Amino acid sequence: MQLAPPSGTPDNVQDLPVRQYLEHLFERHSTNYSGQLASYIPELAAVDPDRFAIAFATTDGFVYAVGDVDAEFTIQSVSKAVIYALALEDHGPEEVLRKIGVEPSGDAFNSITFDDKNNRPFNPMVNAGAIAASALIRGTSHEERFERIIEFFQRFTGRKLALDDGVYRSESLTGNRNRAIAYLELNSGMIGGNVEEHLDLYFRQCSLLVTARDLALIGATLANGGVNPVTRKRAMSAANVRAVLSVMNTCGMYDYAGGWQFNIGLPAKSGVGGGITAVLPGQLGIGTFSPRLDAVGNSARGVAVCEDISRRFNLHLFEDRGSGLVPFRRMYRGDEVRSKRVRRQDQVKKLDRYGHLISIYELQGEFGFVEAERVTRRLIDDKATAYSFIVDLTRVLRMDAVATDLLNTARQTLQKAGKSFAIVSHSATLPETFGQDLHFPSIDRALEFYEERLLEQAGAELAVQKVPLEEFDIFQGLESRLLLELSRRMKPRRFSPGETLIVQNSRADELFFLTEGRVDVAVRTGNGPSHRVSTVEPGTIFGELAIFGAGPRTADVLGASDGTVMVLDRDALDDLDRHAPDVKAALVLAVGASLAERLRRANAEIRALSR
Amino acid sequence: MQLAPPSGTPDNVQDLPVRQYLEHLFERHSTNYSGQLASYIPELAAVDPDRFAIAFATTDGFVYAVGDVDAEFTIQSVSKAVIYALALEDHGPEEVLRKIGVEPSGDAFNSITFDDKNNRPFNPMVNAGAIAASALIRGTSHEERFERIIEFFQRFTGRKLALDDGVYRSESLTGNRNRAIAYLELNSGMIGGNVEEHLDLYFRQCSLLVTARDLALIGATLANGGVNPVTRKRAMSAANVRAVLSVMNTCGMYDYAGGWQFNIGLPAKSGVGGGITAVLPGQLGIGTFSPRLDAVGNSARGVAVCEDISRRFNLHLFEDRGSGLVPFRRMYRGDEVRSKRVRRQDQVKKLDRYGHLISIYELQGEFGFVEAERVTRRLIDDKATAYSFIVDLTRVLRMDAVATDLLNTARQTLQKAGKSFAIVSHSATLPETFGQDLHFPSIDRALEFYEERLLEQAGAELAVQKVPLEEFDIFQGLESRLLLELSRRMKPRRFSPGETLIVQNSRADELFFLTEGRVDVAVRTGNGPSHRVSTVEPGTIFGELAIFGAGPRTADVLGASDGTVMVLDRDALDDLDRHAPDVKAALVLAVGASLAERLRRANAEIRALSR
Repeated sequence: MQLAPPSGTPDNVQDLPVRQYLEHLFERHSTNYSGQLASYIPELAAVDPDRFAIAFATTDGFVYAVGDVDAEFTIQSVSKAVIYALALEDHGPEEVLRKIGVEPSGDAFNSITFDDKNNRPFNPMVNAGAIAASALIRGTSHEERFERIIEFFQRFTGRKLALDDGVYRSESLTGNRNRAIAYLELNSGMIGGNVEEHLDLYFRQCSLLVTARDLALIGATLANGGVNPVTRKRAMSAANVRAVLSVMNTCGMYDYAGGWQFNIGLPAKSGVGGGITAVLPGQLGIGTFSPRLDAVGNSARGVAVCEDISRRFNLHLFEDRGSGLVPFRRMYRGDEVRSKRVRRQDQVKKLDRYGHLISIYELQGEFGFVEAERVTRRLIDDKATAYSFIVDLTRVLRMDAVATDLLNTARQTLQKAGKSFAIVSHSATLPETFGQDLHFPSIDRALEFYEERLLEQAGAELAVQKVPLEEFDIFQGLESRLLLELSRRMKPRRFSPGETLIVQNSRADELFFLTEGRVDVAVRTGNGPSHRVSTVEPGTIFGELAIFGAGPRTADVLGASDGTVMVLDRDALDDLDRHAPDVKAALVLAVGASLAERLRRANAEIRALSR
Repeated sequence: MQLAPPSGTPDNVQDLPVRQYLEHLFERHSTNYSGQLASYIPELAAVDPDRFAIAFATTDGFVYAVGDVDAEFTIQSVSKAVIYALALEDHGPEEVLRKIGVEPSGDAFNSITFDDKNNRPFNPMVNAGAIAASALIRGTSHEERFERIIEFFQRFTGRKLALDDGVYRSESLTGNRNRAIAYLELNSGMIGGNVEEHLDLYFRQCSLLVTARDLALIGATLANGGVNPVTRKRAMSAANVRAVLSVMNTCGMYDYAGGWQFNIGLPAKSGVGGGITAVLPGQLGIGTFSPRLDAVGNSARGVAVCEDISRRFNLHLFEDRGSGLVPFRRMYRGDEVRSKRVRRQDQVKKLDRYGHLISIYELQGEFGFVEAERVTRRLIDDKATAYSFIVDLTRVLRMDAVATDLLNTARQTLQKAGKSFAIVSHSATLPETFGQDLHFPSIDRALEFYEERLLEQAGAELAVQKVPLEEFDIFQGLESRLLLELSRRMKPRRFSPGETLIVQNSRADELFFLTEGRVDVAVRTGNGPSHRVSTVEPGTIFGELAIFGAGPRTADVLGASDGTVMVLDRDALDDLDRHAPDVKAALVLAVGASLAERLRRANAEIRALSR
């Protein structure tokens, strides 16, 4: 089983349906020549206007890219999202919020107006806000600050980024409006320090050269809670991602914020270099590049392509996707599925009757509030009908603090009502807070524990650690003469916990009658460790292959306690064949009947597990 | 197994952790007295300022409500979201977009400015937009139009709503600014028809009396793609929900849009009556009521409570929730899990060797673009190593057109490469477009189909429909004298497809040797239909209980084709006991060995299924 999504590039990339669609989309939009190149500096006006690329990056690290995927262009205002992220990383959201607002201004991106009430730029997606963010970047020298910035950008792109020197110089030479904004901010005390250095950082970051793939990876890193899905390294904290996406969502697309939200519905940021980064949280980053801009200043093809993508693939944030909830993998009671303990008939009957008091919940997936809320509701619902609760977290990929807390609260409520609560988990994935609970490595072990408790309460003879041969289930109805013939050919053997009684793959030449103590049956596959498949109770037999002569041993058998087995070895069996064939026949019949019953139960369990 | 979330109210509502938290939250915020009552009409100024309620409604129809849950208040501007929804339902989004924009205006809610370029109100969340939306509501008379409005609101609340007459009259009497807005709209051609009637509808809808629970249900209906989760009736189309949430998200919270997005991050709408509706798409509607308003006009406690809720439960839209993807329930190959066909040794060995060419994918959950994208990637990845693809959709709760299309495209690509593709599904849930594929009701049937095909290609003797007794696996190594003794006591019996050979729960007194044709073993549980658990090939035995004398039959056995069984009945078995005990012993041994082998395989399958 593989719950983690597959990764790596298939050999036949061109066979992927999404890739085929993106190629189709590329063809269709290639003939859209609407819009104009940015012309406020000569370098942008000189760009090849027909360059065009589309890239998708998924949060499991797969990248689709079509068109001019290696074409580089200046990142321009897309950098505003990233520099804001770095300011948040450097100072935390409270401090940054004091310096830069989060309200859409309704004004142009290069507006010289401010949120006068709070003495700060309206938001980080206008120039005034991005300059203020640049001013917040830490570092002991100008160069170190820029090194920190470029290193931060590279965490998102996963590759080295270069500066377009021509664009940088032009921006710097002609950026007098930005200079005016910065000095007004200095004048009002919104920023401090060396204004020319802050501006230089701002101009440089806008002049970084990126590809559509880079923009898709910036988006995918934000979609992935701040972890670059290709390098698998954390670029920024998850908590700050939320803030960045929020301002992208309300302020990222210039004066098209409402229309973008309405038609495309993904947090996004565009730049006058022709790039757009869009984010489907949790899932996808999209990068597009086409340098012709529409009247608002967004890439004309980029907006059209994103609109097509969002519509075609139903990616709008508010698209009805249903609840997406599959928090329960399976739920069942202890009368439907049993532990792997092979029990005597009196115990089996008790469990048939009372097993429903054990309630098992196999959970799966990623757990936050909504998943945990549903599970707690179910647990509390079962308070009236179950005594023991087994919650299997083995397939829970992630559980946040909220979910842990809700489940813990429900657990405490159940415990106060006298219920018992067991967690099943590989300890590595277990949230620390569950450590105080009953904790088992498998559902089987938890089930066995509660079965024992149930049997104890139901007055089953649990204490019986010793069963004489004549009380064995399989010998019921057998003439005492036959049993005597059998038993006088058996040899008793004592065993200790962990002592090997049967070695897997060895020759099957002994049949065992467990009269005292317990043994574990464990299977080894390949070179792996052995897995317990059942525990055998006194009063039952094991090693049946010996009398059926059917190949080598299929499992190890080890002592689970101190105990005694009565052994019928090869010589004894041969002796029976020769001198008491009727005894042998009766034995074979009895063992065969027990095998038939066990096969019937195994098939029933296969059906239950396949539901 | 239960994949659908549980519904219904537990007996112990107070035990629910979320309920406990909401009570705690209620206590804490009860002492927050900040803000002022709306005072533009006397009725609002006369409201009890301390009223306070919080409600949660989940998309599976569970409602948490604490505080003054029955306190009614006027819905006011929360109605703007609902009337916009009805305008969309009446005219479709394109037509409505021509009449009402979707851009945040940056101006006050009662602003008298318009989007002059497009000759329309900026958005439906300002008065100008809501009046324009009211003007769009269809109906042949004024009263019918209002009836349609109130009926539409009631689909969301699931209960009858009354009008606060006092508020309605006051709003109507004093609403001269709204009157001015409406006449300006008429003057510019933004609206047509009877302005006073449109205004009257507007004033009335604002005066509808609701509770916090109603607001939570409005939110939950939007969260649930337009279906009221309590009544389970569709209130509006899923496509239009997207539009409503989009404008709520950008324009719903007056001049706190950016801060709300930043701090709370849920599409929401507030009203001066003190109500707020917030939506976590797919999961939850939140309704709060507290009439004191902050400087912007939002309920002061409501905003504070929503901030606490969003933070405490990580509900922000852009909270890092991981991908949430669990599209694969299990994946395995045909050498790991077998069909329920009981095969002869030569076939078993072939399947051990070639079974990995059959690749099985058990999918689960709700499928849209992201889930389907990952699955197509996996399918194409396996193109190089698998010949037959079995895709089980049984546990797919929903599959949208995008996912269907992506999977279909991948399927076609695989088919063009000579691969075979089978869908497993209960036909009712199967998207129509998959109808042309190989289609099976269970993985087992699909697996059996591909096993047969594989065996055919691997040159296994599939055509053998007849196996003489001496070639039976279980008789290999048996002396021919013993076999002769056995066979002369057997009686041949012909059977036809569907003919019953063994009836479940009847007495086990015949042992069957299948020499020609196939039989199905099927189990009935309770009063349900019987389920095939295996198909038996010629050359194998069934009905082993007869010789082990272990209780009634555990399954039905029916002919799966025309065929012949050789029958050893009770008389024959008794005769063997008396006159040829060595033959009986050899038979019992052979059958026991076969049972042991089958039990070993069953246990291995249980381990595979429990992974």
